[in-house]
Amino acid sequence: MKILGRPGTVSGLMMRTGQFGFAAASISAMLSSGDTSKFTAFSYLVASMGFQVLYSFALACLDAYALKKNRDLQNPVSVSFFAIGDWVTSMLSLAAACSSAGIIVLYLHDFELCNRSHLPCLMYEISVIFAFIAWGLLFMSFQVMLWILASFSNNPHL
Amino acid sequence: MKILGRPGTVSGLMMRTGQFGFAAASISAMLSSGDTSKFTAFSYLVASMGFQVLYSFALACLDAYALKKNRDLQNPVSVSFFAIGDWVTSMLSLAAACSSAGIIVLYLHDFELCNRSHLPCLMYEISVIFAFIAWGLLFMSFQVMLWILASFSNNPHL
Repeated sequence: MKILGRPGTVSGLMMRTGQFGFAAASISAMLSSGDTSKFTAFSYLVASMGFQVLYSFALACLDAYALKKNRDLQNPVSVSFFAIGDWVTSMLSLAAACSSAGIIVLYLHDFELCNRSHLPCLMYEISVIFAFIAWGLLFMSFQVMLWILASFSNNPHL
Repeated sequence: MKILGRPGTVSGLMMRTGQFGFAAASISAMLSSGDTSKFTAFSYLVASMGFQVLYSFALACLDAYALKKNRDLQNPVSVSFFAIGDWVTSMLSLAAACSSAGIIVLYLHDFELCNRSHLPCLMYEISVIFAFIAWGLLFMSFQVMLWILASFSNNPHL
C-alpha cells in the first residue's frame, strides 16, 4: 500500500519542511518572550525544538537530494534509522510541549498569574501551540516509517 | 512475524494487567497526597489514569476471555479498534504525565518550593513515575497493534 509521507517523495519532503518550520516558529516565539532560563520546562522546550529543527532539516535535505537524484530511500536499513530517529525526537518534543503546557495552565488557570503579573503568557501559548503542531507532523512521519518497516518484514520477497 | 503482546495471548494479558496496575498505583499515590483539585494538571493526571485503568482492565478481561475460550482476537476489525483505543489512551496518558512532571520540576527545581513548603512532593513524584510506566506499557501495546495491522494490509491473502 502506498501511503503519503514516505521518505524520498514530495509529500515526505513537505512533511519534513513543516516539522522544522513549526519547530523553528516555536523557538522564535519562546525566545521573543524574553528570559526563559528561570523555567526548566521552557528551556527544555527550546532545546527539544532545536533538536527537532536540526533533525527534520537534515532529513528534508536528504529527501530533496533523493528527489533530485532519483534515489530510492525506502530500504529496510534507512527506514529503520528514520523510524528510530523519528521516535526519539517525537517523544522528546511531546514531553517538552506537554510539560510547558502544564506550566501555562498552572499560571493561566490555577493561579491566574497572567492577568496580575507581566508574564508574556500569550507568547508562551503560541510557542507551545507551534510545538504541538511540530510534534504532530513528526509523529505522522514516525507512523509512516513504522508502517513501511512492517511491510518489509511481512513481505520477505521485497 | 510473531511478536509478544498480541491480543488474546498470555503476554498480551500480562501487558494489559501491568497497564492498569501502574495506572491504579499512580492514582492512589496522587490521591493519597491530599487535595489535588487546585492543580489542573494533577486532576487531569487522575482523570487520565482513571480512563486508562478502565480501558486496560476491559481489554485484560477480553484477553482472559479469549484465552479461556480459545478465541482468536487477531482479525483486522478488532485490531483496528484496539489500535485506535491504545493510541487515544496513550496520548492522553503521556500528556498528563508530562504536564504533571513539568509542574513538579517547576516546584522542585526552579522555585525550590518543596523544601520550604509542606507540599507532598514525594507522592507527586511517585505518582508521575507510575504514570510514565503505565504509559510506556500502553505505548508498547499500541505499537504491537500497529504492527499487526500493517501485516494485515500487506498480506491480502490473510
